[in-house]
Amino acid sequence: MPVKPQPTALVFDVFGTCVDWRSSIARESEAIGHKLGATGVDWLAFADAWRAQYQPQMETVRSGRRPWTTLDVLHREALDTLLPAFGLDDMSEADRNDLTRAWHRLDPWPDVVEGLTRLKIRYIIAPNSNGHIALMVNMARRAGLPWDAILGAEIARAYKPRPEVYLRCAEALGLAPASVMMVAAHNSDLITAAACGLQTAFVPRLTEYGPDQTSDLAPEQEFDLVATDFIDLARQLGVAPQSI
Amino acid sequence: MPVKPQPTALVFDVFGTCVDWRSSIARESEAIGHKLGATGVDWLAFADAWRAQYQPQMETVRSGRRPWTTLDVLHREALDTLLPAFGLDDMSEADRNDLTRAWHRLDPWPDVVEGLTRLKIRYIIAPNSNGHIALMVNMARRAGLPWDAILGAEIARAYKPRPEVYLRCAEALGLAPASVMMVAAHNSDLITAAACGLQTAFVPRLTEYGPDQTSDLAPEQEFDLVATDFIDLARQLGVAPQSI
Repeated sequence: MPVKPQPTALVFDVFGTCVDWRSSIARESEAIGHKLGATGVDWLAFADAWRAQYQPQMETVRSGRRPWTTLDVLHREALDTLLPAFGLDDMSEADRNDLTRAWHRLDPWPDVVEGLTRLKIRYIIAPNSNGHIALMVNMARRAGLPWDAILGAEIARAYKPRPEVYLRCAEALGLAPASVMMVAAHNSDLITAAACGLQTAFVPRLTEYGPDQTSDLAPEQEFDLVATDFIDLARQLGVAPQSI
Repeated sequence: MPVKPQPTALVFDVFGTCVDWRSSIARESEAIGHKLGATGVDWLAFADAWRAQYQPQMETVRSGRRPWTTLDVLHREALDTLLPAFGLDDMSEADRNDLTRAWHRLDPWPDVVEGLTRLKIRYIIAPNSNGHIALMVNMARRAGLPWDAILGAEIARAYKPRPEVYLRCAEALGLAPASVMMVAAHNSDLITAAACGLQTAFVPRLTEYGPDQTSDLAPEQEFDLVATDFIDLARQLGVAPQSI
């Protein structure tokens, strides 16, 4: 249990922390590739290459070079640049649109639905993701993520780790930052959240980037909680199975 | 069933349409008044007087005379002006704050939780209320309203019936306005929604303003649907009890 007062709300990073984007995108890409007769493509490498464009793209928005732009637009632009390198440049417009929407269809890690369902009993739960509202809603309905509200980048019109995204979560819930706990699998996200006055919980996802992952395997500073998964997080936050 | 294509999302007016603000506010006010030893107060009249300040207050924001301001602030200001007329001006600061928060603790009409739960099976459901996110989240958690997201005034930074509030709902869900149906007990809300290109469903609440209500008893123009309550609405939208 944290030394600080119990939080009132928990806000969650989503890509990597709640959902396994890598396997999901590889699966969805392979399904469309198969239809096109593509062979010999490393679909996990394809997913990694797509995701690798994410931070540089968002940086164009964070820096002010580009106005607020949703991930649907950024994902589609990245896809268009990516397809030739994988020999997939004959993909149709309809398939490109469908594959871009694969980011709305990511599978949760196995502990997430049960963990969130438990946590919701006692705490307000919401995503604090760079994903926009439509993406978060579609993902939540498909995956069964029982959010109380959709917070994050779109309501702040800025991308994490801009501080206003974290502060806007607290403001939207009518809470002081210290009454909100940020839950993430990424040190950088939590370090910024802590700097904004939020409480922090680190839940490492050791295979987010595959079996050879080298980053975010352990906390790099002291966080309020470290949990092995969302069920462990619920237990540490006092929502044990027997309390349901 | 509507002649138009089925909507993908339903957005709901909340005060009056989903929740019975009048009885709830009268009950909460009476509880605090009782503690203060107040006698002879007509608590329903108190609730009505409080609510009567709502539209003029929001008009100061709509007109641009005042920047975006949440209902917590507007409700508190109205309460302070109201208490002397009811002989309650000795109410403490703590009680005034608590009573202002009574607007987060409104009871749903009896059909609402069941109706929304059914509708959510097939449709994205969200409030499109002038209530801010914190109020909507607290109300939903207490009342069991299973929203997919909290849309409405706060994400548009404007109050209904400003058109941008309705259009922002559709935009946030990544949908064309025609794919979104506004559900409300108030003709004026639906007339604006229709002018913005949304589909419309009228669900009259014949006692929102008490047994002598004279307004919004019937549709004043042709809406896409008219339903007696949310369970009837679910039935008309193809989510019958047997489909659960």
